[in-house]
Amino acid sequence: MPTAAIVVDVVRLEEQMLLKALGEYMNVNMVNVRSRALEIGIDGFDAAVIRPISMYRAAYTAASFEAAGVFTVNSSQTIMTAGDKLLAYTQLAAARIPIPRSFYAADVDAALEAASRLGYPVVVKAPVGSWGRLVSRADTPEELEQLARMRQELPCSQTRSMIIQEYLDSGSSDIRCIVVAGTLLGCIKRVAQNGEWRSNVALGARTEVYKPDPVLEDITVRAAAAVKGFFVSIDVFEDDERGYLVNEVNGVPEFKGFYRATGINPARRLAEAILEELKH
Amino acid sequence: MPTAAIVVDVVRLEEQMLLKALGEYMNVNMVNVRSRALEIGIDGFDAAVIRPISMYRAAYTAASFEAAGVFTVNSSQTIMTAGDKLLAYTQLAAARIPIPRSFYAADVDAALEAASRLGYPVVVKAPVGSWGRLVSRADTPEELEQLARMRQELPCSQTRSMIIQEYLDSGSSDIRCIVVAGTLLGCIKRVAQNGEWRSNVALGARTEVYKPDPVLEDITVRAAAAVKGFFVSIDVFEDDERGYLVNEVNGVPEFKGFYRATGINPARRLAEAILEELKH
Amino acid sequence: MPTAAIVVDVVRLEEQMLLKALGEYMNVNMVNVRSRALEIGIDGFDAAVIRPISMYRAAYTAASFEAAGVFTVNSSQTIMTAGDKLLAYTQLAAARIPIPRSFYAADVDAALEAASRLGYPVVVKAPVGSWGRLVSRADTPEELEQLARMRQELPCSQTRSMIIQEYLDSGSSDIRCIVVAGTLLGCIKRVAQNGEWRSNVALGARTEVYKPDPVLEDITVRAAAAVKGFFVSIDVFEDDERGYLVNEVNGVPEFKGFYRATGINPARRLAEAILEELKH
Amino acid sequence: MPTAAIVVDVVRLEEQMLLKALGEYMNVNMVNVRSRALEIGIDGFDAAVIRPISMYRAAYTAASFEAAGVFTVNSSQTIMTAGDKLLAYTQLAAARIPIPRSFYAADVDAALEAASRLGYPVVVKAPVGSWGRLVSRADTPEELEQLARMRQELPCSQTRSMIIQEYLDSGSSDIRCIVVAGTLLGCIKRVAQNGEWRSNVALGARTEVYKPDPVLEDITVRAAAAVKGFFVSIDVFEDDERGYLVNEVNGVPEFKGFYRATGINPARRLAEAILEELKH
Repeated sequence: MPTAAIVVDVVRLEEQMLLKALGEYMNVNMVNVRSRALEIGIDGFDAAVIRPISMYRAAYTAASFEAAGVFTVNSSQTIMTAGDKLLAYTQLAAARIPIPRSFYAADVDAALEAASRLGYPVVVKAPVGSWGRLVSRADTPEELEQLARMRQELPCSQTRSMIIQEYLDSGSSDIRCIVVAGTLLGCIKRVAQNGEWRSNVALGARTEVYKPDPVLEDITVRAAAAVKGFFVSIDVFEDDERGYLVNEVNGVPEFKGFYRATGINPARRLAEAILEELKH
Repeated sequence: MPTAAIVVDVVRLEEQMLLKALGEYMNVNMVNVRSRALEIGIDGFDAAVIRPISMYRAAYTAASFEAAGVFTVNSSQTIMTAGDKLLAYTQLAAARIPIPRSFYAADVDAALEAASRLGYPVVVKAPVGSWGRLVSRADTPEELEQLARMRQELPCSQTRSMIIQEYLDSGSSDIRCIVVAGTLLGCIKRVAQNGEWRSNVALGARTEVYKPDPVLEDITVRAAAAVKGFFVSIDVFEDDERGYLVNEVNGVPEFKGFYRATGINPARRLAEAILEELKH
Repeated sequence: MPTAAIVVDVVRLEEQMLLKALGEYMNVNMVNVRSRALEIGIDGFDAAVIRPISMYRAAYTAASFEAAGVFTVNSSQTIMTAGDKLLAYTQLAAARIPIPRSFYAADVDAALEAASRLGYPVVVKAPVGSWGRLVSRADTPEELEQLARMRQELPCSQTRSMIIQEYLDSGSSDIRCIVVAGTLLGCIKRVAQNGEWRSNVALGARTEVYKPDPVLEDITVRAAAAVKGFFVSIDVFEDDERGYLVNEVNGVPEFKGFYRATGINPARRLAEAILEELKH
Repeated sequence: MPTAAIVVDVVRLEEQMLLKALGEYMNVNMVNVRSRALEIGIDGFDAAVIRPISMYRAAYTAASFEAAGVFTVNSSQTIMTAGDKLLAYTQLAAARIPIPRSFYAADVDAALEAASRLGYPVVVKAPVGSWGRLVSRADTPEELEQLARMRQELPCSQTRSMIIQEYLDSGSSDIRCIVVAGTLLGCIKRVAQNGEWRSNVALGARTEVYKPDPVLEDITVRAAAAVKGFFVSIDVFEDDERGYLVNEVNGVPEFKGFYRATGINPARRLAEAILEELKH
């Protein structure tokens, strides 16, 4: 019987579902990375499901296990790429997956130049950060300059970096799909509250099932592959002219809302896929 | 004639040497990433040499160019992996390249646990950061706890993460080698000043030529390959019992001191290697 | 009947006690400073009890009310002085109140110089910060240099500043006294847990009643006056040779532990003292 | 002959002028606070001119000297009050000196409430910070909310605090006056560059002499007194209806531009005023 670690910093409903699902197929240890150190290149698990909320904790945990040949879901590379919107966009673009038109801007002047090429309004994002934090919309060069200048006062070099992006009037909704081991499990649609243009559940968005068509299935499966993701969620916008655009990939996906809306248990599917993988 | 970009945020001697060397073989543009935005997936160069001092600027620039199929030195993946000591160690360990014994510790308790397994003194490092900043030595659990607690007050989640590492009494010296396109160009030895245990040139270390033996050549070429580096410098310690240990890989290498000590011009070698690469 | 505001950012047991006690003598409004803006120079209260946990929120709230002639407990000047250990020490020293021997050190070199004059071990503190955070002990110059260098990486200029202080082996206990309107209400003694040299309740210290002698009464009443405090708590160490030394003054005092140990209700005493003050 | 310290972290033209001027009347030591620790309550100067650029270094140096009875210019209280725009406004308002209409806002909701009472556009400022950094203008609630949300990501609690202020269309000019020992030395006018609404010299404003009328003289002398300043510069706006409004007081004043424009040497006047003070 294989042994697996579920690595956490905080235990949410998702981690309890994973513990139950994996426990039906293998010996499982819950490892809290805040109190346990990981020796690089030394560890005795067959697989590790990486669940820390902090992206760096997740990536460093995955990397430490990988150095010892453990099969990690996801790999450190996937966590680092998906967790960084700019790296994710570049991998998606390289794989010819449609994304919103986006620029990398290192500083205030570059941000203004990007916006002058895009036209206003523009969205300004940091490459890292969750739940809509550090995402703004600038309607004029004056507003963009102020937001960009303020951002340069932030202490982390990664959050001073900016993605300047076209503003998509997608009816304030987006679609979230979950892919496990190359198969699309299903999709939900998140609809923002009145007056809020960001469709984050943390900002009050509500959730309903969304039936994917073959185009969406193709895009999401290819998006997961573009970031080498074994178990990822993918956020998609619908654009009237261009169709589906991938906006974000998540390498440590939350799936509580997905499970409630669809009845599909991603933890169970993941457990089966890991078992299958370990057989090879 | 191919066209190349040299991307900078600050122009140092190294970038002037690169401009001169590349200019003999191709059309070269110096691009300042602070004022120029890069559209993801759109850009018209054949190659790009990535030189921003800030790791994230370097990685994001490389990624933006890669999305458009430009050959970048180094790739964003190399810059992100080499620029992060923890990710670098895990890639090196996975490739069976000897490294100092190292743990990933997410928080104070994990740091203490790692040190109790290693024995004191231990070295405490942040995964990112240059020139010896955020590198400390702890001689006792009390000292380690204080350093680790202080680190949790830092604002960036990446610098709160810790590498806990054995302390190597390497005579306060280390060897730096430069590898271009799979070939070792040469090595220098940096000797720390009296009373300073860290061998950073920024902390006053001096530099002399070091003739590599076949073992060192093998290790450094494999280390460059482990991080998929086209043009990297590699820092190596000598241990009395275990021989060479790779301590660090740099994906945006400085080479002024190397050039002065050895007379070998890495910019010239790099220009030739890029030209060769573009022929394929 | 006078009207008073209790200004909060978080409501703790202390604020509920204040609401009850003040409510017996005046009309009271609980004002949450996170949602209500204060116009400078304009506001209609007779008195304001300032309770935000954040020192700056407390000081700015007090200052905004003072500009309109409101009687504030404490004044912004008291909150800023008491909330900053370095400013507090200098006011106490100017008033000839005994304090631990202490230096202000702006940077690493100054810290080392201070310690060479004091002798090791030394305590290193930031001027601001609560509950023992950013308080360290350095046993050697090497340890001090590392702690001081690390501190220079902190993002706020105030927490990069250092107090270098003699280490007092006070049996890991200290005395906390509460003074209201020039009168000492009583004292408690906090005894640190085994193995922990800092006597913070947040770090597990326990609490017992301590009967003040006339010397302690004199020192604490004068310490409150030195920072112009109307309602303050004062932390005192006992030194075998020098007797009482004032270590800290708190301008937004917690008093839950004091009330439990002594049965004396500082909220009630404060309400009476404010009513008395408003009569003048 | 008295002895004086000039305390610096960086030596600018101003400090050289002070060294020359004070040297004609007393023995002067230039003290670099980065390498010299100051023992609280112990130091052998008659006077200290406090010049560190960092506000906290300035305030802590002043406080350390004051504890030993040294006459400091300025006092720590003046430096802390003047260096903090919010504390300065409240002291000015309490002294009935006209200021721009201003609110203290601790968080996003409070900022929006303040602006709804003021009307748009509003100016958003941090209490601390120099040269126009962290000063923004918001034209709509959407823009204000974004700027206020972004500010909550800043690492220092003081810069997360906000002053919400009426926007004054003062023709993008302001008047800077210098007061020494209760006497107005003179004023200059700073005119912002085209297209820039902030009149900071660091942002390219130019400078001309401005002859003060009795109203301006009265306001500036009273403003200096309101913050207990011995040597301060005072920034004044002109409003069509309300006349002069004091916008800022500086407790470690730069005076290079003032000297160039007016020919009046504040260093000389200060030296004479300190000598006079020491006679008492």
